[in-house]
Amino acid sequence: MDPDAVAKAFVEHYYSTFDANRAGLANLYQEGSMLTFEGQKIQGSQSIVAKLTSLPFQQCKHNITTVDCQPSGSGGMLVFVSGNLQLAGEQHALKFSQVFF
Amino acid sequence: MDPDAVAKAFVEHYYSTFDANRAGLANLYQEGSMLTFEGQKIQGSQSIVAKLTSLPFQQCKHNITTVDCQPSGSGGMLVFVSGNLQLAGEQHALKFSQVFF
Repeated sequence: MDPDAVAKAFVEHYYSTFDANRAGLANLYQEGSMLTFEGQKIQGSQSIVAKLTSLPFQQCKHNITTVDCQPSGSGGMLVFVSGNLQLAGEQHALKFSQVFF
Repeated sequence: MDPDAVAKAFVEHYYSTFDANRAGLANLYQEGSMLTFEGQKIQGSQSIVAKLTSLPFQQCKHNITTVDCQPSGSGGMLVFVSGNLQLAGEQHALKFSQVFF
C-alpha cells in the first residue's frame, strides 16, 4: 500500500477521533509513546490522553492543510501535518502543526 | 550531553549555514537523507543542496522560535523546529517549520 495513502488515512483518523472522542486517542498511543506539547514532554498513552482531554477547549475541528510523509528505516514512518484548528465560539482558526513517528 | 542542547546546537548550526553559505549544507546530509520540501521528495545530499540553492531567494535570515526534541530509539533523534524566515527586501517574515530526524 502507498505510504502516503497510509499516512493520510492515519492522520484523518487521528484528528477525527480528536474532534469527536478525544479519550479514544488512547488506542493510537502506546506505553513508549511520547508527546511533546508546546515544549512539555509527556510519556505513555494514559498521560498523553490525560493531557489532551484537559486542554482548555472542548469542541474543536481540525482542518488538515498538508500531510508530508517519509519512510524512516525498519518500517518506521515520519509524518508531518499542518492545518487549522477551529475552536467552538472563536471567530479565527488557530494554525497547528504536528509530527507523528 | 543533554539531548535538547544537542538538538538546539544542531539547529542553530543548520540555519546559520543556510543563511551564510547554503552550499555548505551538503555536509549535514548523507546519501540516504531525504528532504520533503513543500510536498516534493528529494533524496541524497547533492540533490537536496541543489534544491535549496535554487530557491527563488538569495539573502535570508532564519529566526528560530521553538525547538522540540524527542529521543527516538537506537540513538536517533526527532527534532521539530518552527520560526520566521526573513527574506532580503521583504517587509514581512514568512513562518516556517521543519522536522529533522
